[in-house]
Amino acid sequence: MALSSPYPSKALQDAVEAIRTLPGVGERSALRLALHLLGQGEEHIASFAGAIGRLGTDIHWCSRCHMVCDGPLCSICADEGRDRSRICVVGSVRDVMSIEATAQYRGTYHVLGGIISPVDGIGPSDLTISDLVSRLEEGGVGEVILALSGDVEGETTAFYIYRQIERFGIPVTTLARGLGFGDDLEYADSLTLGRSIAARQPFKP
Amino acid sequence: MALSSPYPSKALQDAVEAIRTLPGVGERSALRLALHLLGQGEEHIASFAGAIGRLGTDIHWCSRCHMVCDGPLCSICADEGRDRSRICVVGSVRDVMSIEATAQYRGTYHVLGGIISPVDGIGPSDLTISDLVSRLEEGGVGEVILALSGDVEGETTAFYIYRQIERFGIPVTTLARGLGFGDDLEYADSLTLGRSIAARQPFKP
Repeated sequence: MALSSPYPSKALQDAVEAIRTLPGVGERSALRLALHLLGQGEEHIASFAGAIGRLGTDIHWCSRCHMVCDGPLCSICADEGRDRSRICVVGSVRDVMSIEATAQYRGTYHVLGGIISPVDGIGPSDLTISDLVSRLEEGGVGEVILALSGDVEGETTAFYIYRQIERFGIPVTTLARGLGFGDDLEYADSLTLGRSIAARQPFKP
Repeated sequence: MALSSPYPSKALQDAVEAIRTLPGVGERSALRLALHLLGQGEEHIASFAGAIGRLGTDIHWCSRCHMVCDGPLCSICADEGRDRSRICVVGSVRDVMSIEATAQYRGTYHVLGGIISPVDGIGPSDLTISDLVSRLEEGGVGEVILALSGDVEGETTAFYIYRQIERFGIPVTTLARGLGFGDDLEYADSLTLGRSIAARQPFKP
């Protein structure tokens, strides 16, 4: 007789089912990860589960820009040295981390918490756009940078936000798009190459 | 000023570092998974962390065969319908699940909890070999099947166990090895093909 359930233990099955909810993790991988954890012993498992659990309980969201942080304000909004007259609007926490890693930007951010996507049921009211508008109403902002993805959803979101904030008369910019540094023309997709030609810039020798 | 730490939150960093301990998960994937969890909300995170945590607290190991289970005996050892005169010796919990999935075996198991591997510091005393010997001393066993991996470590382990149990005079068998069903000769490695020829069997039309 084969096992009535393919799992020899309810606790193992529950763990596998939890791990399977992660993106890109199938049942076989989930089982492999669960058995790996099991092999690490009770102390490691408790520490692992504790670290994950604290994601739910100890994370705060910046009351100003909606970045994840450990207190009421994120370290960027709390930093007197940042240029508060610039707001870079991004979709996610991850985007802030990517831009910060370039060390090329000294302004503040506004994390939308997603991108408008009717297919996924995400509308403008699911994002933090009204809080962005409130920040602009407070005054003192001289530039809004729309740093959104270059796909249809990103451009739709950028356009929607633009319509919401154009009345403030604040300059709105967007990320430069074109060939990546080191990219070969031969392998560039024609849309990117076409836009790179249309948006060509003065040569600086 | 860039963030002093690349992580905007200690809780996020702790979760990423925990997730990174999983095999095959790098920092970028760990961050992606942590942010995915974060986006699922506090309730889902608590349930996820709880399921992982119970791996450490609620899992039992069968006192007879060392399979994971929910009580003192696993469902296979507790099943009166299984043939207790056969013991299939495997390296891991996963191997039991794989063999059970074939529905071709009705005997019991013995989970070693690893394979002898001097490189990884795993010696015979780290495995449950002495418990296997105790089971044989109790009597009533008519066959021991060594279902270990076909690599050097697996063969070393099989040989070691064989030497420990040969004194009982119980028939010891091992898994048939050869070309997989549907395998093409052209793509078989020469070691497997060579063994398949050497261990050729009567043709059954």
